[in-house]
Amino acid sequence: MIIVLKPGTSKKDISHLVAKIKKLGLKPWVSKGVERTIIGVIGEEDIIRAKPLEAFPGVEEVLPILKPYKLASRDFKKEDSVISVGNIKIGAKKLVVMAGPCSVESEKLLIEIAVAVKKAGADILRGGAFKPRTSPYSFQGLGAKGLKYLAKAREETGLKIVTELMDVRDMDLVVKYADMIQIGARNMQNFNLLKEVGKTKKPVLLKRGMSNTIKEMLMSAEYILAGGNFNVVLCERGIRTFEDSTRFTFDVNAIPVVKALTHLPIIADPSHATGKWGLVAPCSKAAIAAGADGLIVEVHPNPEEAFSDGEQSLLPKNFEKLMKECAEVAKAVGREM
Amino acid sequence: MIIVLKPGTSKKDISHLVAKIKKLGLKPWVSKGVERTIIGVIGEEDIIRAKPLEAFPGVEEVLPILKPYKLASRDFKKEDSVISVGNIKIGAKKLVVMAGPCSVESEKLLIEIAVAVKKAGADILRGGAFKPRTSPYSFQGLGAKGLKYLAKAREETGLKIVTELMDVRDMDLVVKYADMIQIGARNMQNFNLLKEVGKTKKPVLLKRGMSNTIKEMLMSAEYILAGGNFNVVLCERGIRTFEDSTRFTFDVNAIPVVKALTHLPIIADPSHATGKWGLVAPCSKAAIAAGADGLIVEVHPNPEEAFSDGEQSLLPKNFEKLMKECAEVAKAVGREM
Amino acid sequence: MIIVLKPGTSKKDISHLVAKIKKLGLKPWVSKGVERTIIGVIGEEDIIRAKPLEAFPGVEEVLPILKPYKLASRDFKKEDSVISVGNIKIGAKKLVVMAGPCSVESEKLLIEIAVAVKKAGADILRGGAFKPRTSPYSFQGLGAKGLKYLAKAREETGLKIVTELMDVRDMDLVVKYADMIQIGARNMQNFNLLKEVGKTKKPVLLKRGMSNTIKEMLMSAEYILAGGNFNVVLCERGIRTFEDSTRFTFDVNAIPVVKALTHLPIIADPSHATGKWGLVAPCSKAAIAAGADGLIVEVHPNPEEAFSDGEQSLLPKNFEKLMKECAEVAKAVGREM
Amino acid sequence: MIIVLKPGTSKKDISHLVAKIKKLGLKPWVSKGVERTIIGVIGEEDIIRAKPLEAFPGVEEVLPILKPYKLASRDFKKEDSVISVGNIKIGAKKLVVMAGPCSVESEKLLIEIAVAVKKAGADILRGGAFKPRTSPYSFQGLGAKGLKYLAKAREETGLKIVTELMDVRDMDLVVKYADMIQIGARNMQNFNLLKEVGKTKKPVLLKRGMSNTIKEMLMSAEYILAGGNFNVVLCERGIRTFEDSTRFTFDVNAIPVVKALTHLPIIADPSHATGKWGLVAPCSKAAIAAGADGLIVEVHPNPEEAFSDGEQSLLPKNFEKLMKECAEVAKAVGREM
Repeated sequence: MIIVLKPGTSKKDISHLVAKIKKLGLKPWVSKGVERTIIGVIGEEDIIRAKPLEAFPGVEEVLPILKPYKLASRDFKKEDSVISVGNIKIGAKKLVVMAGPCSVESEKLLIEIAVAVKKAGADILRGGAFKPRTSPYSFQGLGAKGLKYLAKAREETGLKIVTELMDVRDMDLVVKYADMIQIGARNMQNFNLLKEVGKTKKPVLLKRGMSNTIKEMLMSAEYILAGGNFNVVLCERGIRTFEDSTRFTFDVNAIPVVKALTHLPIIADPSHATGKWGLVAPCSKAAIAAGADGLIVEVHPNPEEAFSDGEQSLLPKNFEKLMKECAEVAKAVGREM
Repeated sequence: MIIVLKPGTSKKDISHLVAKIKKLGLKPWVSKGVERTIIGVIGEEDIIRAKPLEAFPGVEEVLPILKPYKLASRDFKKEDSVISVGNIKIGAKKLVVMAGPCSVESEKLLIEIAVAVKKAGADILRGGAFKPRTSPYSFQGLGAKGLKYLAKAREETGLKIVTELMDVRDMDLVVKYADMIQIGARNMQNFNLLKEVGKTKKPVLLKRGMSNTIKEMLMSAEYILAGGNFNVVLCERGIRTFEDSTRFTFDVNAIPVVKALTHLPIIADPSHATGKWGLVAPCSKAAIAAGADGLIVEVHPNPEEAFSDGEQSLLPKNFEKLMKECAEVAKAVGREM
Repeated sequence: MIIVLKPGTSKKDISHLVAKIKKLGLKPWVSKGVERTIIGVIGEEDIIRAKPLEAFPGVEEVLPILKPYKLASRDFKKEDSVISVGNIKIGAKKLVVMAGPCSVESEKLLIEIAVAVKKAGADILRGGAFKPRTSPYSFQGLGAKGLKYLAKAREETGLKIVTELMDVRDMDLVVKYADMIQIGARNMQNFNLLKEVGKTKKPVLLKRGMSNTIKEMLMSAEYILAGGNFNVVLCERGIRTFEDSTRFTFDVNAIPVVKALTHLPIIADPSHATGKWGLVAPCSKAAIAAGADGLIVEVHPNPEEAFSDGEQSLLPKNFEKLMKECAEVAKAVGREM
Repeated sequence: MIIVLKPGTSKKDISHLVAKIKKLGLKPWVSKGVERTIIGVIGEEDIIRAKPLEAFPGVEEVLPILKPYKLASRDFKKEDSVISVGNIKIGAKKLVVMAGPCSVESEKLLIEIAVAVKKAGADILRGGAFKPRTSPYSFQGLGAKGLKYLAKAREETGLKIVTELMDVRDMDLVVKYADMIQIGARNMQNFNLLKEVGKTKKPVLLKRGMSNTIKEMLMSAEYILAGGNFNVVLCERGIRTFEDSTRFTFDVNAIPVVKALTHLPIIADPSHATGKWGLVAPCSKAAIAAGADGLIVEVHPNPEEAFSDGEQSLLPKNFEKLMKECAEVAKAVGREM
């Protein structure tokens, strides 16, 4: 950690700061430049990170050197983590595709979709039983019933299932039915929820908050890892920017950045990242070309009647086409589908 | 609601859409312009809002006319709501000030701060017993013990207390001790938490998410109001932008915008909105000048040793100075402190 | 255009507005809903667009129906435009690659780079003779001398050259030497500069401003087209967001969005969009997968000594590798390199 | 400057970097921590700032210590600069108000407005003769004729005049007529324009770009100061964010931040920062409460017919009311109007 002092900081203020650092068991070294004095701190950066050094008199700026996440970092584990969801491996050469409706609407419809996406090559069925909706007047999900339909669809097709957990009170229920627990974008910093999923060994799909930095996403992953659950898959799903022609801006840069910073796999959600079904295909291909380990895509046979997100859902025939196109791109970058 | 069609949309697609709208019990009227055909929809906009009209063939854009929140809107209630927290009125001529430490750290320290902010003129004591922290390795709050200390401080000073609720499982506990429940920025779209606080009559301080629009904040308020709890106070606490010289960008525009759209009161949090104690005073005065109904400010007698947010906490003497300066500005805009 | 009135707008205010619209030669129709009255306006939307309708009493919101650009729109021209830079075609099946140093530094070095990128398969040499630099103390470019070196490099290699025009006074000079004129991100809304390049027939590479919407980019293209120059190629080069791990956020969504809205070609600039040479390859492949018509890439044989942008420049050997990898992705999406 | 190395950087790479730093005449010191080695660089940071250190093998991150602007910084000049526009002083105790129409439309109308704003207490008349417009089809300003009308209005009222310069070719013309030259938000990084106004001694009103950081604004000011013109007044006019209920987000934090970093005065533009006339008053009062040295406000007697920005223009009677209200706030913070 580097502490930059304001010009003209008194000797007394410097001594006060140096004494404080020593008291914490760390080693400060003071370097006087022509225009600024700076203090370097050697030792466990964690100890001092929590301290509000900017509250000390004379401190202009504090520059951390080390990353605040540990277990999630490449420094901690050099080789890529491969996360198993049953027999499905996420982070390996073969890309993994999760597909299904935004919301679970009925058993019949869900199975119809599951069969279709399975046939097109999907590995995991997605579908929300609990739905975070901006409006209290919107459809809020089928709850426990939805989970049962998901289990039924798994039985029928052999697909694994991933579904969102929104509430710590539903933890046991979701763990019982799901093969993979999704933490949605709006809950990426719901720290108690993160702690709960950290206590199981269930694979977790952690979606990036719409206005969270990559660093914050890794800090949220750290919550889960620190709890003992290393089965975390990250998901880039678009960030909020000034651009208003799409629902969100898909941050494709995040994919190689995440790959460099962490050993955890990362997939892309082109449906939410664009908000328009016509953009799902180009965005999916871009994600794969950039190195994503898979996709999560919304599919609905009758988007006009979908209970949610109809405008960004693909028809099964378009999903099938997408799978073929993506397979070509995957091959071009040394992956498989 | 106005539906704009793509140029060249077929008669069949138009009929399909018109039939659908009629089936929903609404009245469509079609207007053919030189370059675009548009369909207006008259009737309960809510019915059709949930439908993914953009998923219909030929639809270029859907333009809603009505606001998606009802109970929170000025259309629903013209006069300003005044929310009572015991004998404290929020939204009246007299501005309300909430002050205290970021986290509750010890009983002794909390009471010391409570006495100081009371003396300087604060109405409500703030202090976190449950703390949302980006890092799993940071101090996470004292929990139930912290709530007891808050109650003790209330006893000693007569100040009301406001504290954050992060987890639905802590609802009863927080309701038992707090006079006002804070929903933090990271939980503004934790919809189950909103539903829970909608079930009590406790006043709720709802903070704007760091990247949520004003409309979304009002939708979150709507969740609480729709549950039957009309005691909601909004809080502008800074939004995330590209500017990196402050922790967040205080959106002062939001204050008059909110006042125009809703009857609910709004206060400002200059500590989080700037992230630097030296900016708290100018930001507070700006908020009052723009029409805020009060402030929530972090105060700590020894920011260097604060468990959290030390860099943005005011010393009691600076808080006292702030109160005097703000009183002048309040008077200048026809308010009191 | 749709005008939404506030609830309770007086008949007088409505008549006033209706009269005004008629006076402009347009046809208003008034529709009274349960909660809102709206006025539709039929006729040349341009006439009324410039009018500040929101300044009229009773007006809550104005919703435009038509796009504000005409010549740049797909409505105006359905088929893709292919722009010729000499024998190079931009917007055709074969992707076009522009490569070279950020700044022109010396004749010798420029020719060395030109030879290398030509050998690797580039079509056009890029290089700045005039440089927009944030600091007045940074290298500002070689000016006219730099243009001469570019011409020399063209002579030696047969590559076409693209270079930035920053100042209307340099117009003749740049037109004399360059095959394609670049308008940089910081000048995307330098309207007088756009008007000037609209007067020539030289192909223009128009880069998106770092915080301009796609719509604004098309409006800037419209300036050039309206001047009579239809040889415009757009360039996505990253937008400014809250994410701070990359210099900009590459908006890959913009590529298919632009393709849908306009007939003009669009290329990607992965060097500026990421700011880090290690991210240039994944970002380039993503752009091609999403449908970009080409790339513009910074290459320097000794980035450590580059006068500008060294941290985002590729070594020639890495550029060669990039070209091979991109060719695979291009093939996967039905294009060539 | 602090250079952070990647873990495992070889001795050879470290020596290479150290040698490079020494060759530049600077003094490196190497500090090996448990997890990272860092290199501090003492000496003229400018020399090394331009070097792409991140392009060196083994470099993870480069952390600058000193600010990149010099003449604009508080380090360079401790006391506030007061800029004279004739007898008007900007940056002194008395706040300065600039007011007038967005565009100069006719001599008669301009004089009418000038008389009205003068009477209400404005010091300087604003009005655009050259207008930067997003659309090529919008009114582009009266040009030279507009400047003459401004001069006429000055003659009639004694008000000083400020008007925008968009094009280096209009420099002499604008210098001839204006008392203060405005550099608009879209030209804040038009560096050649900045260099030109740096060559005169005319006061310059430099508006912040809608997506430029405060640091970049100070770098642009540095261009003018470095040219020899120290008469620079900054202007906060709103930044682009995700919030869509206002045209821009007024960054009120910027006012105290700028005051801390530079000796130059700063005023606020509430008309552009909000885009809605109903928000001009609260935003103006907020700016003054936060410490702004003045305001620039759009006023038009008939906003419905304004050639531009009608929706954000105040009627003269509302401007008069604003002046009275602002005077109260100014007094509350120890200023005058």
